[in-house]
Amino acid sequence: MVITERAPLAAADREAAAGLQVIDVDLHHHIANWQDVAPYAPEGLRHRISRPGGPPLARHGFKIIGPRFGAAPHPVDAHGIAGHPAADPAWVQAEYLEKRGVDLAILTGPVLSLGVQPNQDMAAAIATGVNNWTLETWVRPYTCFKGSILVAHQDPVQAVEEIDRLGDDPGMVQVLMGSASETPLGRRQYHPIYEACVRHGLPLALHIGGEGAGMSPPSTAVGHPTTYFEWYGSLPQVYMAHIMSMVTEGVFEKYPDLKVVLYEGGLFWLPHIMWRFDKNWKAQRAETPWVQHLPSTYILKHFYSTTYPLEVSSPEELAQVLEMVDGEHTLLFSGNYPNWELGDPFAMIADIPTAMRRRVLVENALAVYGERLLRPHAR
Amino acid sequence: MVITERAPLAAADREAAAGLQVIDVDLHHHIANWQDVAPYAPEGLRHRISRPGGPPLARHGFKIIGPRFGAAPHPVDAHGIAGHPAADPAWVQAEYLEKRGVDLAILTGPVLSLGVQPNQDMAAAIATGVNNWTLETWVRPYTCFKGSILVAHQDPVQAVEEIDRLGDDPGMVQVLMGSASETPLGRRQYHPIYEACVRHGLPLALHIGGEGAGMSPPSTAVGHPTTYFEWYGSLPQVYMAHIMSMVTEGVFEKYPDLKVVLYEGGLFWLPHIMWRFDKNWKAQRAETPWVQHLPSTYILKHFYSTTYPLEVSSPEELAQVLEMVDGEHTLLFSGNYPNWELGDPFAMIADIPTAMRRRVLVENALAVYGERLLRPHAR
Repeated sequence: MVITERAPLAAADREAAAGLQVIDVDLHHHIANWQDVAPYAPEGLRHRISRPGGPPLARHGFKIIGPRFGAAPHPVDAHGIAGHPAADPAWVQAEYLEKRGVDLAILTGPVLSLGVQPNQDMAAAIATGVNNWTLETWVRPYTCFKGSILVAHQDPVQAVEEIDRLGDDPGMVQVLMGSASETPLGRRQYHPIYEACVRHGLPLALHIGGEGAGMSPPSTAVGHPTTYFEWYGSLPQVYMAHIMSMVTEGVFEKYPDLKVVLYEGGLFWLPHIMWRFDKNWKAQRAETPWVQHLPSTYILKHFYSTTYPLEVSSPEELAQVLEMVDGEHTLLFSGNYPNWELGDPFAMIADIPTAMRRRVLVENALAVYGERLLRPHAR
Repeated sequence: MVITERAPLAAADREAAAGLQVIDVDLHHHIANWQDVAPYAPEGLRHRISRPGGPPLARHGFKIIGPRFGAAPHPVDAHGIAGHPAADPAWVQAEYLEKRGVDLAILTGPVLSLGVQPNQDMAAAIATGVNNWTLETWVRPYTCFKGSILVAHQDPVQAVEEIDRLGDDPGMVQVLMGSASETPLGRRQYHPIYEACVRHGLPLALHIGGEGAGMSPPSTAVGHPTTYFEWYGSLPQVYMAHIMSMVTEGVFEKYPDLKVVLYEGGLFWLPHIMWRFDKNWKAQRAETPWVQHLPSTYILKHFYSTTYPLEVSSPEELAQVLEMVDGEHTLLFSGNYPNWELGDPFAMIADIPTAMRRRVLVENALAVYGERLLRPHAR
């Protein structure tokens, strides 16, 4: 099923796009010392952010087993001590982007649980500080990085202010929220955030990370899991719930131009959501008369998935599932650099059918993010 | 992938089985008046159960929209008043089973939120009362009904006592728990329940119903949904969490003979769980060294799905998914009588490949429940 539509790029942009090899929509740049970020945060709450280890943030108790960065490259200092692989933009550009042929990377950062932090003012201040720091130290000095406008969605008023503050900056290409949430994202209190996304022509990115921490409910519908293994495996469930909530509450009827990118959730669960939801809609839509189309129609039109981590299966089954979810138009390459604990991101997409590879590596990102991805943003 | 193994039936049983047309593993018999059940409950808590409307039970706020029973048949009294379609076993036998060619039906009843009721003693007393009432008024007077041993799993001690009390009765063919749960079902406090299932050769059945009620966490990992539509659509997520928890906590290493039947959850989400979980296992299994095989190996060997409601899709996609999850060996016909709000259960399986139909309608149930399904149980 093919539903996605998008205005074509202008001629000059088409030419620029033709020269691109890889667009990576998920690069986790790292804050080595929060004292570097603090000056970019609002003065009133700067003192909460200025500890080297960063602000006090609720966190869950699950930790990756084994080497967190897998075989990702990392710098080594004069004493042979390994540094963080994503703390220095020039090093990341040279050692990851250039060596792997990545032309453009969208920064998603290290703070993905803001939306479930109890102190909403502090969460908003952190978002502002991180956004300014990202723009000034990563995005503007380089041509290869684009930024995400991080917001803390539990206070939609401040989230909208932040989107309006940065929403027309050519260095910022999406709004980024943690998928961990006190309530499903279709709820009406969040609609002003979606309106702001559309107002500035920005996709909404959701990224896993804070599930089960802070104000989040347990990370499964039957309580807290025991291990990281189980916690990480369960995470697509938050996307399932958000998708159903956003479709059911009519978000895409109100904001027909809104696009949503789901990060690090895989995609093999999407056929189930589309088809169970379609079946229920046929019997139960009297409850939600504003949901005028089959749920799968909204899903295929408005949601995008990312490749890291693509589920393990046979090439034949992968091709079948990609056909079911229109992967040709909805799947974006995500490197998840430097969190390569599940393997190399290029090895992960080895089984994607050849005919679809350029769409996944370049063209779908251009379709989602539009010409802003190609606009100069340097200082 | 084909993994399921089971000892073959004895010759006499094979002959009896050959004459069967349909085994329905999910018939929701109804309690019209709880005063009928009360005499079968333990004396000490009988007074809580003896109100006509039944005991006080926590419930969620979601209700089916539209006609709850769809086009299911229902009795009409002398005054033209419609009765409940599943309150009278003789009527159900004549009007559903015989008219639709169902030889045997497993009773699953109307009380599927016991496991999240705060009063654990009352929940256990209800289970005992309902089990005795089911045996005496539905199972023993007929040859066409088999019962489920309902237990309230939040108190595993009483649950095990109930399984041991009834576990060798030829009228009872499985242990039944609500899938709604305060904690994931892999947790070790529940292992004695699984040990009791295996001790009596009984599969474990999980059935949706109480999600979001009582002691249950919200029915999604991001909080309470708004509508029945969304609530019902989200329910497979509890099965995903339970599967991952049970595999991760080593339930199937401890109890290699345990079989689990997942009711009313569909099955199109299973490929995602198998493959995401397999991928994670490869990277993260140091955390759970007792999980010795790929998670999908345990899943295909130990879990069974039911047909109501089978997700809507094309015949081609349905065939692909059935292949992925080994539906030929893991899918059981469930009529969900009389809750036909999503359509007729036989119409729902119209697209199942012909070569697989007899397995789904008869043989897989015999493989799961074994020869007890064919044993006489009448008084």
